[in-house]
Amino acid sequence: MRKNFGVKTWLYPMPVLIVAAYDEAGVPNAMNAAWGGIHTDDMVGICLSEGHKTTKNILARKAFTVSVGTRGRLAECDYVGIASGNKVADKFAKAGFTARRSEFVDAPLIEELPMALECELVSYDIESNHMVGRIVNVSVDESVLGEDGNVDAGLLQPIVYDPVRLEYRVLGEKVGRAFSDGKKLF
Amino acid sequence: MRKNFGVKTWLYPMPVLIVAAYDEAGVPNAMNAAWGGIHTDDMVGICLSEGHKTTKNILARKAFTVSVGTRGRLAECDYVGIASGNKVADKFAKAGFTARRSEFVDAPLIEELPMALECELVSYDIESNHMVGRIVNVSVDESVLGEDGNVDAGLLQPIVYDPVRLEYRVLGEKVGRAFSDGKKLF
Repeated sequence: MRKNFGVKTWLYPMPVLIVAAYDEAGVPNAMNAAWGGIHTDDMVGICLSEGHKTTKNILARKAFTVSVGTRGRLAECDYVGIASGNKVADKFAKAGFTARRSEFVDAPLIEELPMALECELVSYDIESNHMVGRIVNVSVDESVLGEDGNVDAGLLQPIVYDPVRLEYRVLGEKVGRAFSDGKKLF
Repeated sequence: MRKNFGVKTWLYPMPVLIVAAYDEAGVPNAMNAAWGGIHTDDMVGICLSEGHKTTKNILARKAFTVSVGTRGRLAECDYVGIASGNKVADKFAKAGFTARRSEFVDAPLIEELPMALECELVSYDIESNHMVGRIVNVSVDESVLGEDGNVDAGLLQPIVYDPVRLEYRVLGEKVGRAFSDGKKLF
């Protein structure tokens, strides 16, 4: 038997996207967003309300970064989802984040978060609050690369948002191979 | 030190969305999509190429469901991502899926996947392949509800796609509370 919950924005897994941008004076800010993902071939899409300081910053500077929230910085990631950059002028610093300018776009990387998508603004739809960015580069700190030089999710330890329980979970163990385990059903 | 990987559609976590629809004759089909997430207040957004049988079905019937891929049905979820509904007429059945018509939209639920978003088509952009659906209902099988009647992610065991290693991982344990753990930084 299924239980009907009505209209809910529930999905598993839901990401913890830490979106960062500079304001017009060059002050970095960051926020936490769960509504988003890969939009198309080389783009990311995120729902960002108009009122956020970060939204205004991105519209002014035409660039942003999207860092992956991690277990090692869980409190920091949660903090930037609670505090408002419209009220706390030094929110980025209060979160314990260190900004380093991206080599590719006019936006800050967060030193403490090892993986980030560096993006140029493509479009923002005021009605749906849907922002689309072109991924210009993905940068990953060497500390979370495996011996083969590629990202190791076990080292990165990305966190996942549970929209029903309002909890964070960590990514768990490998349970299968994509484009492979289904072949037995052919 | 950061390593630059260039333009990559990498993100953690990335979902395993099983998108299902009926064709014009009422035959159900399903496919696996990793590019998508919550789009805005009551909508889901997914990147679906024009050529997919499921895309054609959704455009014809104006409705679809999005089920959460689970560990218990990993091979089935992977299979519908490898096989093409344009070539395998009974793909849905070959995957071992049983269709049950949604009470809310003109699309099939998959009995074997306990959680699904039931959606009406809102828009499809041919250029970006971005499809938006309005969530009319979320239905969840009682077998994955906790004692409080709410979804228990530990029972659901959603799988997560790793775009770097082409692997599936399972959702791991609870590591924090959202809108809470960041308060210590205030």
